[in-house]
Amino acid sequence: MSKLRVVVFGENVHEHRNPKVGAIYPKGMHAAIAEGLQASGDDLVVSTVTLQDPEHGLTEEKLEATDVLIWWGHLAHGQVADAVVDRVHKRVLEGIGLAVLHSGHYSKIFKRLMGTTCSLIWREADERERLWVCNPGHPIAQGIDTCIELAAEEMYGEPFAIPAPDEQVFISWFEGGEVFRSGCCWYRGNGRIFYFRPGHETYPTYYNPQVRRVIANGVRWARPQGSRWIDAAPCVPAREKIVGHVPGVSS
Amino acid sequence: MSKLRVVVFGENVHEHRNPKVGAIYPKGMHAAIAEGLQASGDDLVVSTVTLQDPEHGLTEEKLEATDVLIWWGHLAHGQVADAVVDRVHKRVLEGIGLAVLHSGHYSKIFKRLMGTTCSLIWREADERERLWVCNPGHPIAQGIDTCIELAAEEMYGEPFAIPAPDEQVFISWFEGGEVFRSGCCWYRGNGRIFYFRPGHETYPTYYNPQVRRVIANGVRWARPQGSRWIDAAPCVPAREKIVGHVPGVSS
Amino acid sequence: MSKLRVVVFGENVHEHRNPKVGAIYPKGMHAAIAEGLQASGDDLVVSTVTLQDPEHGLTEEKLEATDVLIWWGHLAHGQVADAVVDRVHKRVLEGIGLAVLHSGHYSKIFKRLMGTTCSLIWREADERERLWVCNPGHPIAQGIDTCIELAAEEMYGEPFAIPAPDEQVFISWFEGGEVFRSGCCWYRGNGRIFYFRPGHETYPTYYNPQVRRVIANGVRWARPQGSRWIDAAPCVPAREKIVGHVPGVSS
Amino acid sequence: MSKLRVVVFGENVHEHRNPKVGAIYPKGMHAAIAEGLQASGDDLVVSTVTLQDPEHGLTEEKLEATDVLIWWGHLAHGQVADAVVDRVHKRVLEGIGLAVLHSGHYSKIFKRLMGTTCSLIWREADERERLWVCNPGHPIAQGIDTCIELAAEEMYGEPFAIPAPDEQVFISWFEGGEVFRSGCCWYRGNGRIFYFRPGHETYPTYYNPQVRRVIANGVRWARPQGSRWIDAAPCVPAREKIVGHVPGVSS
Repeated sequence: MSKLRVVVFGENVHEHRNPKVGAIYPKGMHAAIAEGLQASGDDLVVSTVTLQDPEHGLTEEKLEATDVLIWWGHLAHGQVADAVVDRVHKRVLEGIGLAVLHSGHYSKIFKRLMGTTCSLIWREADERERLWVCNPGHPIAQGIDTCIELAAEEMYGEPFAIPAPDEQVFISWFEGGEVFRSGCCWYRGNGRIFYFRPGHETYPTYYNPQVRRVIANGVRWARPQGSRWIDAAPCVPAREKIVGHVPGVSS
Repeated sequence: MSKLRVVVFGENVHEHRNPKVGAIYPKGMHAAIAEGLQASGDDLVVSTVTLQDPEHGLTEEKLEATDVLIWWGHLAHGQVADAVVDRVHKRVLEGIGLAVLHSGHYSKIFKRLMGTTCSLIWREADERERLWVCNPGHPIAQGIDTCIELAAEEMYGEPFAIPAPDEQVFISWFEGGEVFRSGCCWYRGNGRIFYFRPGHETYPTYYNPQVRRVIANGVRWARPQGSRWIDAAPCVPAREKIVGHVPGVSS
Repeated sequence: MSKLRVVVFGENVHEHRNPKVGAIYPKGMHAAIAEGLQASGDDLVVSTVTLQDPEHGLTEEKLEATDVLIWWGHLAHGQVADAVVDRVHKRVLEGIGLAVLHSGHYSKIFKRLMGTTCSLIWREADERERLWVCNPGHPIAQGIDTCIELAAEEMYGEPFAIPAPDEQVFISWFEGGEVFRSGCCWYRGNGRIFYFRPGHETYPTYYNPQVRRVIANGVRWARPQGSRWIDAAPCVPAREKIVGHVPGVSS
Repeated sequence: MSKLRVVVFGENVHEHRNPKVGAIYPKGMHAAIAEGLQASGDDLVVSTVTLQDPEHGLTEEKLEATDVLIWWGHLAHGQVADAVVDRVHKRVLEGIGLAVLHSGHYSKIFKRLMGTTCSLIWREADERERLWVCNPGHPIAQGIDTCIELAAEEMYGEPFAIPAPDEQVFISWFEGGEVFRSGCCWYRGNGRIFYFRPGHETYPTYYNPQVRRVIANGVRWARPQGSRWIDAAPCVPAREKIVGHVPGVSS
């Protein structure tokens, strides 16, 4: 079986503006995410691209050679070129996987695929998050016990303005009193989309082994299933004999 | 109870170009749809707007005074102003209903809400369509027997590139050999969306009493449920005491 | 419009064994639930039945005259007669509504309708519960602000072994660290089923105005939609001419 | 990777009563189904059991050593022992896969898992069936073109009294005028359930290469995902400090 080609898109802005973020992720958040994925198995070939690359690194050629795309962005969603969003959108509907992390809930590509505002409530207060597995048979929950505990994270709370997920894998509890649908799956066209909540830039969340396991599971779950949807609206001949009616006569 | 304010958007192009269409719908397709709705009960106040109206008739004020919007378009989807699509999109997410008819599957607003291409296969061959009720308990199927037969219609066939409907009400059989998910419901934000397949411009479909009944049911199903979603992403205070952690320490 | 006939089934055992429960609910939990419902509007006619009644009060005649049934049970699920469960099951599939409260998750009728074990994790520790609205456009959430706070309740936690709800209305946060899908809707046959978590017998939960509002909303949401599903598997004649094939020839 | 252990349950009654069936399936329908599966790849180990075997061949030991169970029954659903149905039900919820074929829609195990009557309309008229792929990205549709044509089959028509499928893969067109949701997926507990319509006993449907491909895909889709749900309702300690409230005080 050929290897799964995973591309991690990193916005790569916080790392250079906020020394705290730079200290936690000296090579960038995307590098830490990619490193965790690569360590999960040699069935993956992982590469990274950033906002600053020409076409954000997501050229036609690159996307053609991508099986699953991971998206982390926050400050600079507006700087992502619409042409690139169109291209990624098309590729997801054709069948590649997309894993959207944390603040990527407000990325152009996620909002485009959801068709909703993707808004939520939030707070930065160094609080405990506990992600409960509500679907223990789901491939993305494999290897995770009943829950994942993170000592400090940003809070995201309901209502999360998304279409009802096709599959719900995790629901988060926050120390300050909120809950959130933090692991959600959707099918759109031939593509699979996984949203996973944790990963605020000021915490070392992407080094957490269980968070890494979930992302690695998500990538494998989202892999293309073998066929590519070629968008078309063909006029097709009849497969059965049509007896024929007088057009315009009252139906 | 105050009346439900229903607005029918008609593209109003075929009627003036194709004498056959003009003969079937001398006042426009939108007028026939509106007439059928108004006849369904005086709990509705029905008005019409067309592509040719300033802002397609869908001004801020008009949309503010709309409970359910019906959409028929085909030839001129590209002429619908993006600013109007933005406005309708926002209002649907806030909570108004949207009923999309037939070739409206390719309208900007429907594709925007679905997040997919909404493509399908098709054929114009004056063939029989039979819409089967697969969900007899659904409010939209009330008053309809096991199926609706239309003597002649355009064919739409699977795969229909939509997100899996939240509720499936009708599935169509076509004489030429295809099937189609022809009555579909989705929830997006606080709004309800109903797609109903029949209604090619060259057939008198919108005079059919059962088709009229379904559209009338759909409008009542899609009515706002009482609250309005104000899109916002507020930073909120904690509801519980947060013990506090040393930020940056490994989670 | 004729009134909605609501029947509250109460197990009525704790009230007579545990003085604390008897003190909170001197006329029985079912009476408090019924009282709250009746106060919600005179579009309802509310009655109560208990486990101790002949046939638990749920005779053919009573169920025939029921639009929505509410179920509270805990200690004595095993004492509910299978014949009565069969009867209620049949009526729900025909189209009446069923609202299952709290420990009713383990009732025979709920497990029968779900097809799963309906297990969960739990704790009795007088802890705070906060039910978050994750679906603010849902009819059952109308009149409820962002969340409902209960000062002390039993905890129920994930994983909740149910089929994925067709609609998720509330998700609970618990002081001790868990989450739970606490307001869930399903469609089965022509019937609507609403599960609502709160209501441990040792707390005055069913006097809480917001809890009462949710149950009142749930009853109205679950009302029959006008048609009755008569279970049958009829052999039907063809609607189209069948050309005919040599049976047994390779398909 | 260890092999997937697939067990085919055949009712094995028609084959001995109806010479036409015996001629098409001289070793039994279960044998033809098993043969097709075994030919699909040596990642499977396929065995068969029948109604006539002690405990229908589905002993504790056998089910413990089963990854996916296929079920074909029709005439003798009532003869399947309830204890065996309980056992299969438990194993599916723990995580094994179940593929239910054709008239198995009325089997005890399928009705138990669905919670509904699973009724439908039908006709035996040697008519053409065409199964359309409505979900081309689904693993079960891989290798199938736009549709599967069967020259002669029994008709099953809507409404099919099932819970809305979690995933819809195929929808059937019938020559006589009906439609049917003929390829449906559900998740229950940790188990996956696939219903696939074709396979009336008087037709050689289970020799059809595309039907075989779908069943083979379905088995691989339904394979256990690695964890086993142990049904339990544990009382668990709090993970957070509970401040405590005066029980019984108005919440």
